[in-house]
Order: sequence, then C-alpha cells, then structure tokens
Amino acid sequence: MSNATNTQVLLNSRPKGIPQAENFTISECPIIPPKNGQVLIRNHYLSVEPAMRGWICDAGNYSEPVGINTVMRSLAVGEIIESKSPDYHVGQHVLGMFGWQSHTTTDAANIDRVIDTSQLPISTALGILGINGLAAYFALLEVGLPKPGDTVLVSTAAGAVGSCVAQIAKIKGCKTIGITSSPEKIELCINEFGYDQAVSYNSPNFVEELANACADGIDVYFDNTAGRISDAALTLLNQRARVVICGTASISQWSPIPLGPRVERHLLVKRARMEGFVIFDYADRYHEGVKQLSEWILEGRLHYREEIKHGIEEAPDSIAALYRGDNLGKRLIKLAD
Amino acid sequence: MSNATNTQVLLNSRPKGIPQAENFTISECPIIPPKNGQVLIRNHYLSVEPAMRGWICDAGNYSEPVGINTVMRSLAVGEIIESKSPDYHVGQHVLGMFGWQSHTTTDAANIDRVIDTSQLPISTALGILGINGLAAYFALLEVGLPKPGDTVLVSTAAGAVGSCVAQIAKIKGCKTIGITSSPEKIELCINEFGYDQAVSYNSPNFVEELANACADGIDVYFDNTAGRISDAALTLLNQRARVVICGTASISQWSPIPLGPRVERHLLVKRARMEGFVIFDYADRYHEGVKQLSEWILEGRLHYREEIKHGIEEAPDSIAALYRGDNLGKRLIKLAD
Repeated sequence: MSNATNTQVLLNSRPKGIPQAENFTISECPIIPPKNGQVLIRNHYLSVEPAMRGWICDAGNYSEPVGINTVMRSLAVGEIIESKSPDYHVGQHVLGMFGWQSHTTTDAANIDRVIDTSQLPISTALGILGINGLAAYFALLEVGLPKPGDTVLVSTAAGAVGSCVAQIAKIKGCKTIGITSSPEKIELCINEFGYDQAVSYNSPNFVEELANACADGIDVYFDNTAGRISDAALTLLNQRARVVICGTASISQWSPIPLGPRVERHLLVKRARMEGFVIFDYADRYHEGVKQLSEWILEGRLHYREEIKHGIEEAPDSIAALYRGDNLGKRLIKLAD
Repeated sequence: MSNATNTQVLLNSRPKGIPQAENFTISECPIIPPKNGQVLIRNHYLSVEPAMRGWICDAGNYSEPVGINTVMRSLAVGEIIESKSPDYHVGQHVLGMFGWQSHTTTDAANIDRVIDTSQLPISTALGILGINGLAAYFALLEVGLPKPGDTVLVSTAAGAVGSCVAQIAKIKGCKTIGITSSPEKIELCINEFGYDQAVSYNSPNFVEELANACADGIDVYFDNTAGRISDAALTLLNQRARVVICGTASISQWSPIPLGPRVERHLLVKRARMEGFVIFDYADRYHEGVKQLSEWILEGRLHYREEIKHGIEEAPDSIAALYRGDNLGKRLIKLAD
C-alpha cells in the first residue's frame, strides 16, 4: 500500500462566512504507512456538516480551527486495510474524525467506534446514527425536555438533524411543526417525517403562517437556524418553553455579531429558557443513542434520507450546497463501496 | 372608621416607557367599611418595584395591566384596624397586594401573610423578606445554580435584588462581581455587600473594566438590566454558564422590541443557558425563603439597605426615581408608624 496515493481536500484559505468550493484544494500525496499502534483506513464515506463552517472559522468556537493547508476536518467511515494495532484488524469498518481524504493513517485511539455492518448500511454511521441523529436525540431529550402533548417546533425541519428531532418528538407523544424552505420539503416533512404541519420560511406570509400553525403556542423550539426564523418563533413561546440552540444555519457570519430583536423580555415574561447544545459533550453516551436510534429504525418508527454524491471532487462545494438548502437528506460523499 | 378618608394613588394614563409622576393622580375617597369576610388595613409601608413598569404597560406581561383610574398595584404592609374575618384580628401586621393607598378594604383571602414583628422591622417584609429578597433567593439558587468557586456577576449590583443575590452567592462559596452606576455605589457594593469587585456601567471603559474583573469568565450572570450591560457580559460567559433574566431595567421600552447583538452563537458555543424568572411562580415556597433569609439576617451574614420616603405624595415619582438609579437601597414609601 505504501506506494499508493492519498487524495486529500485541503483548506487553502479561511472563508468569510459560508465556506465555498474555492476555499479548498484537492491534492495528492503518498499514503503514509501505519506505525506501531496505528491503522490505515480506506474511507468509504465522508461527512458534510453545517457545523463545518464553525470548525473552519477564526472566531471563537468549541474546537480549534482547521489549519490552513491541512486536511479538512470531517467524520468519515471506512475500512481498515492495514493494522499495526492489537485492538483492530483488517476488514473492520470504523468511524472517526478521519478528514476529507481517501485514506487515513492514524493512531488507533482516534477511532470513535467499530461499526456494526450487520443490520444497517455503514453510511448511517455518519447521519442518523452519527452526530446528526445523536444531536437530535440528546439535544431534544436532555435540553428540550419534551412532554407528551407538547408542541415541538423544528427549524431546518427536513434536514438530517431536524427530521430526526421531529420523529423522536412524535415517538414521545408531541405535536410537531416544521419550518423548511420549499413546498417540496413541506411535502417531505409531512409525508416522510410525520410532521403535523410545516411552513416555508420563503413564503411571503411566513410569520402569519407560523403563528397559525402554532396556534397553541410552542413548548419546545428546536433551533437549527437562528436569525429571523427564530425571531418569529420566540414571539410564540408558551410559558416555561425550552429553546434548544443546536445550530445557526441562517446566519452567514458572526463577526461582527449581527443585530436582532432582543430576547430578554420574551424569556422573562414567559419564564422560558434558551440553551446551547454541542453534541461532542455527549461522547460518552453515544452508545446509548446509537442503540435506541437503531431500534427505532429497525422498528420502522424512524426514517432517514441520505443524499449521496460520488467522488471526492464533490467535497469542496458541499458545505456551501448545504447552506443553499440544495439537499433533501443527509449529505455524504461516497468514495468506495 | 367609615367616615374617615382613604388617600389613593391612581394610574391616570398609560406611560410610554418608564412610568413618570404625571402618569399618576393622588385622590381621596371615603374608606369602605369591611363586609363579612373582609378586613380593613391601615398601610404603613408601600412598595416601589422596577417591575411596576411591566405591571402598568399594555404589552404582554405576566399579569393583567393596572386599569386606568384604578389604584396603582403594589405590595404593602399594614395593620388590621377592623376585621370581619374569623381568621384575622385587629392589631395584626399583614402583607399583601394592597395598592398605593392609605387604607385597604379587602377580602381576607388577599392577605399574603401575617408578619412576625418580633425580630425584624415590618418594612423588611417588602424588601429583603419580600419579593426582592425572595427573587434573589429563588432565582439565584433555582435558576442560577451556583456552585462553590463559581464567578457570579450581578447587574444592578447595589439594588434590592442584586445586593441580596451577591450575599447569597458569597454564602454559597462563589466569587461575586457587581455592575452598578457610580463610584459611590461601587463602595457600597464592596464594603456593605461583600462583592469581590464592582464596576460602573457609566465608566467610559466599562467593557474593558468588566472583562478585567471577570478574568476567569462568568459562570452565573444574574441579569436585572438587559441591554448593553448584558451584551458585554455575554461575551465573557464560561462553558455551561447560566444567565438568569430577572429584570430588564436598562430598556425603557419593549414595543417595538429594541435590537441588540444576537445571542444564539454565544449560547451555542458556550453551551450556556438563559432563563427568565418571575418570583410569583414561587409563591408556595415563600415561607422557605423568608425563613432562610431571616436566619441569615439575624446571623449578620445578610445585609440590606432601605431608602424610606415619607408620605404618599412621594409615590408618583418613585418608579421613575428607581430607573434614574437615585436610590441606595430598597425604596419604600412610609405612611404610618
């Protein structure tokens, strides 16, 4: 293997706002042979996350920014093709922060988990059983605290996180309302993900349509967008409502911090709560989430969509595409079968 | 008693923003004799609260707005001078929403509690043992969740609520930092209320001074102001910080909602929480708070200040005076000994 080539996507410049294709360069280099304690992984699927915007930007975030001229940070699933670790063997499928590259040579300690390939496709480890589904699971249940009969409003309702949130909320006996971007996605929300109602933020009557859909108020607002979508939602909170801030997809730049209507009075009068959520804080409970989500999928109670692009050359534009709302499911880059 | 006169402060017009003296009229009417089940109370002290602004305004709040040409809503303490209730007798001192008036004829059910006059002055029932002290107690302990070693930042640090918050935080082993309005109040914060540090929001270098005072970040921000003071505080939150929204004193008008820097990204990246608090939600636990606060006062661990104005003619301007920051302690209107 050591003479074979590794194809990598490098960050070549720090974007202002949403990362674009031109912020990345595709480059080739020799595969590095694993040393003792290391494995060589051939990546099958690379992930694409809205959160990658934050992983790249210079502003304060929850992790160090990706360095210029280094491989773009990404979760990936792949197969071990060479192992110098006693803990792993060739042929195992594994998940980890392996980066946007065709091959990853890394310490075995950097493997997050071995993937059970017996029941569900390995791609699910990056979506519904990856940080998207896990974020939905822990953020809704631990921060949103839904009770049967609650109204749960979800922004980016058809997305990888939002669609999972809504289905878990439904399993927990809640009414679910989605905010999405198009009539096509409204259809998807209602027919595939079981939302009771969905509205489009691109409608000229969005604010009124949302108020009508939320006639009983909102008990949990699961926020993946921030911005004007949240501004409309906050006016509809019920007493003791919980706002889960899981993403800020509608704000392209946070430096300087954009202005919006102040939230203090809404929160005070409604005794409501807004709380931020980062999935990596729950790493030691992932197994619990994966187990429950897998069960629900196998029982047919939890549906997911994947939108798979083929070839690493799809990676550089893929974050921008997410923010354009092009996708109808978890966006993945497939490199190998 | 029935031919005697009741002096009342009526709301004559709905203020835009902070209620001013001209929004009130002082008026006289005969005292209404109590019917069966009622008592007649001679009020000794009337309360003045920042929250009165909200009780008067038309915009959504947690209680019905005070009606035009009706007595201004207020907590008061007084002595029962006539009782037609089997549950109360003449000579008892009682607390309740008796309004800005010299005499109150009301159903016995409207009495919140009988005041123990044996250990502490009855005025304390409106301040440190009233909704100010109780708000400090329950909001800090139930929403702020301070842990030993935490840094607790308090806005309106020398005020009736803020000064109590800081002392309770200190009792709980926290470091306390205050935001107040003048060098005189900084002195008071440090010497009387035991703050570790205090800064003035009127300083031209406020943002830098606050950042220096909070060099270890902020674990609990007890917010009585909102506005630019909070904007500065939010940039200094530690991971998992709790922001308790107890008041919004720095914002004179909420309709239309004023703009400010968006909070979503701070909350997300720091996994922080903002939550609104209204003391009346804790009515069934007041006795617990009064008991603990009384003990701390009698042990010399909890200090309070009162600024007592004499005569009902002081009432109309008293809310505006609070917002001007004139007072150095809980503002009360004294009507009788």
